[in-house]
Amino acid sequence: MLFHVEMDVRIPTDADPARIDALKATEKARCQELMEAGKWRHIWRLAGRYANVSIFDVDSPAELHDLLSMLPLFPFMEIRVSPLCRHPSSIREDDR
Amino acid sequence: MLFHVEMDVRIPTDADPARIDALKATEKARCQELMEAGKWRHIWRLAGRYANVSIFDVDSPAELHDLLSMLPLFPFMEIRVSPLCRHPSSIREDDR
Amino acid sequence: MLFHVEMDVRIPTDADPARIDALKATEKARCQELMEAGKWRHIWRLAGRYANVSIFDVDSPAELHDLLSMLPLFPFMEIRVSPLCRHPSSIREDDR
Amino acid sequence: MLFHVEMDVRIPTDADPARIDALKATEKARCQELMEAGKWRHIWRLAGRYANVSIFDVDSPAELHDLLSMLPLFPFMEIRVSPLCRHPSSIREDDR
Amino acid sequence: MLFHVEMDVRIPTDADPARIDALKATEKARCQELMEAGKWRHIWRLAGRYANVSIFDVDSPAELHDLLSMLPLFPFMEIRVSPLCRHPSSIREDDR
Amino acid sequence: MLFHVEMDVRIPTDADPARIDALKATEKARCQELMEAGKWRHIWRLAGRYANVSIFDVDSPAELHDLLSMLPLFPFMEIRVSPLCRHPSSIREDDR
Amino acid sequence: MLFHVEMDVRIPTDADPARIDALKATEKARCQELMEAGKWRHIWRLAGRYANVSIFDVDSPAELHDLLSMLPLFPFMEIRVSPLCRHPSSIREDDR
Amino acid sequence: MLFHVEMDVRIPTDADPARIDALKATEKARCQELMEAGKWRHIWRLAGRYANVSIFDVDSPAELHDLLSMLPLFPFMEIRVSPLCRHPSSIREDDR
Amino acid sequence: MLFHVEMDVRIPTDADPARIDALKATEKARCQELMEAGKWRHIWRLAGRYANVSIFDVDSPAELHDLLSMLPLFPFMEIRVSPLCRHPSSIREDDR
Amino acid sequence: MLFHVEMDVRIPTDADPARIDALKATEKARCQELMEAGKWRHIWRLAGRYANVSIFDVDSPAELHDLLSMLPLFPFMEIRVSPLCRHPSSIREDDR
Repeated sequence: MLFHVEMDVRIPTDADPARIDALKATEKARCQELMEAGKWRHIWRLAGRYANVSIFDVDSPAELHDLLSMLPLFPFMEIRVSPLCRHPSSIREDDR
Repeated sequence: MLFHVEMDVRIPTDADPARIDALKATEKARCQELMEAGKWRHIWRLAGRYANVSIFDVDSPAELHDLLSMLPLFPFMEIRVSPLCRHPSSIREDDR
Repeated sequence: MLFHVEMDVRIPTDADPARIDALKATEKARCQELMEAGKWRHIWRLAGRYANVSIFDVDSPAELHDLLSMLPLFPFMEIRVSPLCRHPSSIREDDR
Repeated sequence: MLFHVEMDVRIPTDADPARIDALKATEKARCQELMEAGKWRHIWRLAGRYANVSIFDVDSPAELHDLLSMLPLFPFMEIRVSPLCRHPSSIREDDR
Repeated sequence: MLFHVEMDVRIPTDADPARIDALKATEKARCQELMEAGKWRHIWRLAGRYANVSIFDVDSPAELHDLLSMLPLFPFMEIRVSPLCRHPSSIREDDR
Repeated sequence: MLFHVEMDVRIPTDADPARIDALKATEKARCQELMEAGKWRHIWRLAGRYANVSIFDVDSPAELHDLLSMLPLFPFMEIRVSPLCRHPSSIREDDR
Repeated sequence: MLFHVEMDVRIPTDADPARIDALKATEKARCQELMEAGKWRHIWRLAGRYANVSIFDVDSPAELHDLLSMLPLFPFMEIRVSPLCRHPSSIREDDR
Repeated sequence: MLFHVEMDVRIPTDADPARIDALKATEKARCQELMEAGKWRHIWRLAGRYANVSIFDVDSPAELHDLLSMLPLFPFMEIRVSPLCRHPSSIREDDR
Repeated sequence: MLFHVEMDVRIPTDADPARIDALKATEKARCQELMEAGKWRHIWRLAGRYANVSIFDVDSPAELHDLLSMLPLFPFMEIRVSPLCRHPSSIREDDR
Repeated sequence: MLFHVEMDVRIPTDADPARIDALKATEKARCQELMEAGKWRHIWRLAGRYANVSIFDVDSPAELHDLLSMLPLFPFMEIRVSPLCRHPSSIREDDR
């Protein structure tokens, strides 16, 4: 099932740059792993903001929570989750 | 280019049902026409609300405005638009 | 899976009382039917407001949307949906 | 009587991990103790957020305040409390 | 137990004045009846607004809901309820 | 004249506990002194929050400001002030 | 004593123009009467909005409420009231 | 001097279309007249919304208010005004 | 021309008291200098808050920005500016 | 294509002044470079706030994001982006 997830990242301006860079690299690797597994179906950057809009395809809210809460940048994120369902006007097979 | 569009529909509870049904039918036809043309790339229902989240793929903000403002239900909608761009972590060719 | 649903009901003060009473009666019957079916697990009144907090147990966001959008009072409601998952501290079997 | 309680936990990103882990362990033990005592009737995780929704069954607002304000993570929480009452549509004995 | 209740009254500007005057008279009588019964302990006007702040002393959230939802102006009100408890600094016997 | 005052206390989680405890003790003593003087007429705890709702009876907004701004915890508080006046429905002599 | 009052006027777009014009004329006359009496000390238009910022000099919150609630346009206004006091930096005698 | 003005237009969905069309035509003519006079320096449509962002170049807040409050669609608009001044980084002569 | 300015001061609770006291003293001197020059026409304390409401009389938004941004406490302030103009109901010569 | 960008700058009050001054100088140089390149078409200071309103003229949301996210003060900014399009009332050739 699909969930719409919006993530804002707020790094304190006095954080240690090396620590943050390491977290970002792990975050990117983890994101790509989940995309390849088909769990993190889409991710787009919101232009001008350190934020993204994503579509997750998971088996349950519990799986979604596990994936999100284990992201390396989770402690720095403000996250909004909205459950999605198929729109009667959609003509795309996979927009369920 | 891609835009994230969230639409809330607010039909006054004393509106004429026949008029609204006609508008909804035209809206659905127009939506599917734009999906087939590749302009309205995704549409999902937000569960529990008369609202949707959509991804548009258009040539400019002007084209986006023309498409949205000519929707039959536009006068009843509250719309929020956010420009998207490719996320460095994405592995999908078309998430540009 | 469980969803937390908060519903505010806003009846226009000039609505026809007979029509509204009929809708409320149907709404109550439908609610009890869904409770007996185990879909609408809990409903509580928020003290002092024409509003409730409910817990739904459904198979998908799509089923949740179908149940909510077919409620007789749906056109008069403002609804907020939050997906839930089991809390690691819970000791109750069914708080999944 | 029942209260709906929503708790958001905000741990500063520079807090000492050992101190926080100790607080979390005590918090979990205290939560389970209160669940067994029937005071903390339900707790669910809000998917994607370090937050929960809970139902408390207490004798008074004063007892609720004592229970909440003595939680180990209370200084890190933003809490919203809403008094509940039985909904006329409910068919469950204990949704009072 | 005590509850803090804030009520905003919103009368549509095209409502029938005679109907509204009748509702206000009944509302006032009902309020005074509840004050004499000790249920509606305090009521103050918020200066410059058609709104009040009140303190109710009731046996449960359910009793509070019954009292509020049967007020003649209830359909025109926006109400916010907060449960109160004794403050450790209070020296007044009845500020429980 | 009466003022409705709502105070939220926000202690930084890394503040020195001894310093805060000393401030709280002085705050409590000051509060009780003002209650005995009849200036701070009521104080109630908002259940589940480090916050209170109070009623002050002072000679002017200036006196109110002096009393509030000299409270030991004032630098940690967010305060909302609303002027009150007698409600036409009140039957209590001192709800002026 | 001084109060800062901000008034937004919201006339429904289908209101009867003649009735509104009559109310506006009475409102203006009443405002000028109160300015001459020294009660309504200042009034400024907020540029670009049907709204004003005013300073009232009254004997009590009760007098302020009486003056505001009897304004002809009161049913169409959203009003925010803030009590003022002398600022220690002021050099004007009458900014008390 | 320059002012940043954001205008949202809210036409009730049951308004008479002929009346609204006439107002829109007059509004457009008036806007172009003010652009030619150099008073309304820029106007842009906010994509997807019946709203615009404009830059006015006027002699005073009073002149700005006169221009805005006499627009034919003013009764249907929600307007936010922000005074602008030259930015030290600007290299454009007329961005004063 | 007149501007309505509301300033909230937020001093971090761990700031050096001596530094803050020095800034406050300079701020007060600067404020009084500007009042004597007729630029800062009024200043009132908002009762119960470390905040003020002020009326500035300046030649342009640019002059207003210069005066505000050079205040010693500017880095600690949240400021809201609204341009004012003469209200048609005003009888005061200098409320222009 | 044009984008409306509003930037609020929030420098922590305990940041190192020399570091911030260096960032501001680089920011100014970068801004002027982009203005000369025609990418950053307008920038205005919002009077009384450490904030600006800007108009960017870029080829895509992606180019906008690159320009904004590489600004030296980006980590200290809160940014809101709105896509613009030509307004039918505009008479300026370049307000597209």
